[in-house]
Amino acid sequence: MTEALAPDKQRGISIVIPLFPDFCLLDVSGPLTLLNALEEEITVTLVSDNASAVISEQGVSLMTEADFNDDLFCDLLLVPGGKGVKASLNHPQLIQWISRQGRKARIRCAVCTGSALLAQAGLLDHKAATTSKHQYHWVSELNHNVKWQPVARWVQDENTFTSSGTAAGLDMSLGLIAFLMGEEAARKVAIDAEYLWRNDPDDDPFAPLHLVE
Amino acid sequence: MTEALAPDKQRGISIVIPLFPDFCLLDVSGPLTLLNALEEEITVTLVSDNASAVISEQGVSLMTEADFNDDLFCDLLLVPGGKGVKASLNHPQLIQWISRQGRKARIRCAVCTGSALLAQAGLLDHKAATTSKHQYHWVSELNHNVKWQPVARWVQDENTFTSSGTAAGLDMSLGLIAFLMGEEAARKVAIDAEYLWRNDPDDDPFAPLHLVE
Repeated sequence: MTEALAPDKQRGISIVIPLFPDFCLLDVSGPLTLLNALEEEITVTLVSDNASAVISEQGVSLMTEADFNDDLFCDLLLVPGGKGVKASLNHPQLIQWISRQGRKARIRCAVCTGSALLAQAGLLDHKAATTSKHQYHWVSELNHNVKWQPVARWVQDENTFTSSGTAAGLDMSLGLIAFLMGEEAARKVAIDAEYLWRNDPDDDPFAPLHLVE
Repeated sequence: MTEALAPDKQRGISIVIPLFPDFCLLDVSGPLTLLNALEEEITVTLVSDNASAVISEQGVSLMTEADFNDDLFCDLLLVPGGKGVKASLNHPQLIQWISRQGRKARIRCAVCTGSALLAQAGLLDHKAATTSKHQYHWVSELNHNVKWQPVARWVQDENTFTSSGTAAGLDMSLGLIAFLMGEEAARKVAIDAEYLWRNDPDDDPFAPLHLVE
């Protein structure tokens, strides 16, 4: 555990998540469910254009409570992927907010194509990162300053975590918990959720997908 | 694939999900994300006490659009688990609605402790079923007419599917997709989500948890 990143026992961990139309529900709820199983106090703030309900790719809507003018206290910025990412790359308020908020966050994470938004916001410059293997080609063309990894379940580069496609976000979240709280805490969370953690970030069974356009 | 259960190509598959305070977000979003990856048209209706937003155990809220007086067309009734299940066992409108809606549904599913609600509604009587291995003791005491299985990743008894703890809902959903659409469709959905499907319902690595109270 990096001492500077150890959660404040009093304050807990504040998670901030931007939502946009057609975000992928599992990219948000997988990490949140695992992180919420920690003993530390977790606070979650969902952020959107108008601080209103945002519809997911799966057709159900999550309520949000802040908007892209808000400047939030944030330990962990989590950016989901989903079909709506491509349209959101051209949403200046969202990208500028991610850029500002990400620079203040202690940890930046993206699941699946959420890394495209982090890359567009300049937060992955000169860092190693990965993304959905199905979407690898166009995401990795977005920003040539990123050291894109075609074979990785997830990538940690200092305080920045990016995962492969949707379900890889579960493995990455446990990797993040291990980084923050130690391996034993991550294993306990996985057991509680009855999840078999694939705990090797380099073991990517879906890597060949990036060879198929 | 059971012919009678094959989805109507025109109409698609209607999924109906009851929500209650402190439901587990992943129990809803995992199955929805996988089912939504099918080529068939999926419609989802979330139902609650007042057709308003319902807060999950993880602190974020899903919008609902129907209430427990509504009688909905329903191919698939999906009941999530979560910390709120125990309080919801004493909510007569919810239990009666699950009972009515479940008897009309072509398929009934529960993830994790959602099976406690199905059992309370009488929908598991004389059926084999499972539940969270951490919560096995109290859930299996609720209704002695259920053939509770202490060792199962998930259980299918005719048109009724129940899974072990939260993450087992992902494996069960793929089992359900295989039942409806065939094994190949399930494998394609798993690959698209970069999820390594544990496709043997009897292979339950967390079964020993039910021995620990």
